[in-house]
Amino acid sequence: MKEQLQATSISQKDTFWMKHALALAQEAAQKGEVPVGAIVVYKDTIIGAAHNLRETHQDPIAHAEILAIKQASDHLGSWRLENCTLYVTLEPCPMCSGALWLSRIERCVFGCRDPKSGFLGSISNLMDQEKLNHHYEICSGVLENECSEILRTFFRRIRERKSQKEQNKI
Amino acid sequence: MKEQLQATSISQKDTFWMKHALALAQEAAQKGEVPVGAIVVYKDTIIGAAHNLRETHQDPIAHAEILAIKQASDHLGSWRLENCTLYVTLEPCPMCSGALWLSRIERCVFGCRDPKSGFLGSISNLMDQEKLNHHYEICSGVLENECSEILRTFFRRIRERKSQKEQNKI
Repeated sequence: MKEQLQATSISQKDTFWMKHALALAQEAAQKGEVPVGAIVVYKDTIIGAAHNLRETHQDPIAHAEILAIKQASDHLGSWRLENCTLYVTLEPCPMCSGALWLSRIERCVFGCRDPKSGFLGSISNLMDQEKLNHHYEICSGVLENECSEILRTFFRRIRERKSQKEQNKI
Repeated sequence: MKEQLQATSISQKDTFWMKHALALAQEAAQKGEVPVGAIVVYKDTIIGAAHNLRETHQDPIAHAEILAIKQASDHLGSWRLENCTLYVTLEPCPMCSGALWLSRIERCVFGCRDPKSGFLGSISNLMDQEKLNHHYEICSGVLENECSEILRTFFRRIRERKSQKEQNKI
C-alpha cells in the first residue's frame, strides 16, 4: 500500500498550487511565525488558504493545514472534503495528518520533509495504518528546495538574533 | 517508556472530573452528535469544556478534545498547556492525540478504548514515537463502562431508527 500511495507523480498543476502555499509561508515568516503555508483546492479553485498562526493566536491547534481545512469545510458546508487536495509546504505533523484523514480528503501534496515530526513518511506514516476507514494519496517533494529554504532562512535569522543579543550582554 | 507512561493510576479526582466529561458527552448525544465529551483541568479548575460538534458545525476538526484545548489556550493566553490534564470519554484519535502532543499537556485521561481509531494504545500509540519532543502521561479506563455505554446506546438508537425507516418503506 505504501508504494502505491507514494507513487503519485508531480504535475505542473501541483507546482502551480504549491507556489500559492509558499507565498502564504512567506507571509507567516514576516509575522514571526514558523513559515508553513497550506491551501485546499477543489475543482481547480482555492477554497481554503492559511499559514501557521500558533504564536499570533497562542493556539497549539493553529497550524496552516487545520486553518485551511476549516475554511474549506465552511466553504463547502460539509465536513467531508472529498475530491479536494491539500497543498502544504512542510510534511504534516501527527495532528494535521490525522485531520486530513478525518476530512476524507482525496490527496495531500507537500513540499519538504520534517524529520523531527513529519507523520506522512518521516517519523511514521499515518496512511500505513490499515485499520483507518479512509486513506488519502500522498505526493511529496513539490518545490522541495524552495519549501525547505524558507524554513532554513527563518531559523538561521532566529539564531543570528539570539547570538546578537547574547553578544550585546557581554 | 510505554510501561511507565501507562502506569498512571486512577484517583478519585480522575473519576470526579470524568463525570464532567460524561455530562458533556450526554449533551452531545441530545444534539445528535457522537457522544464524546472533554475537559481541560488546571490547578483543580476546568479551563476548557466541550463536546463533539462535527455535525453541527460541519467541521472535521470539531472533536471535543480540540475544542476543549482551544478554550484552555484562550484561558491561559498561551499555546502551552503545561501542568494541565485533559479528560475525555473516548480514547483520542490520531488528530487529537497529536493536538495533545503539540499543546505540551502533562496528562491525558480517557474513559473507554476506540478499537477502530484510538491512537493512544488501540490501533497505535503516538506516545511510543520516541522522536517526538514531548511525551504526556496516559491513564485509561476511568468510568470505562459509563463512557462506552453512552456510545453503545447512541449507535443502537441510530440503527433502530434506520431499521424503522426501512420497515416503513416496505
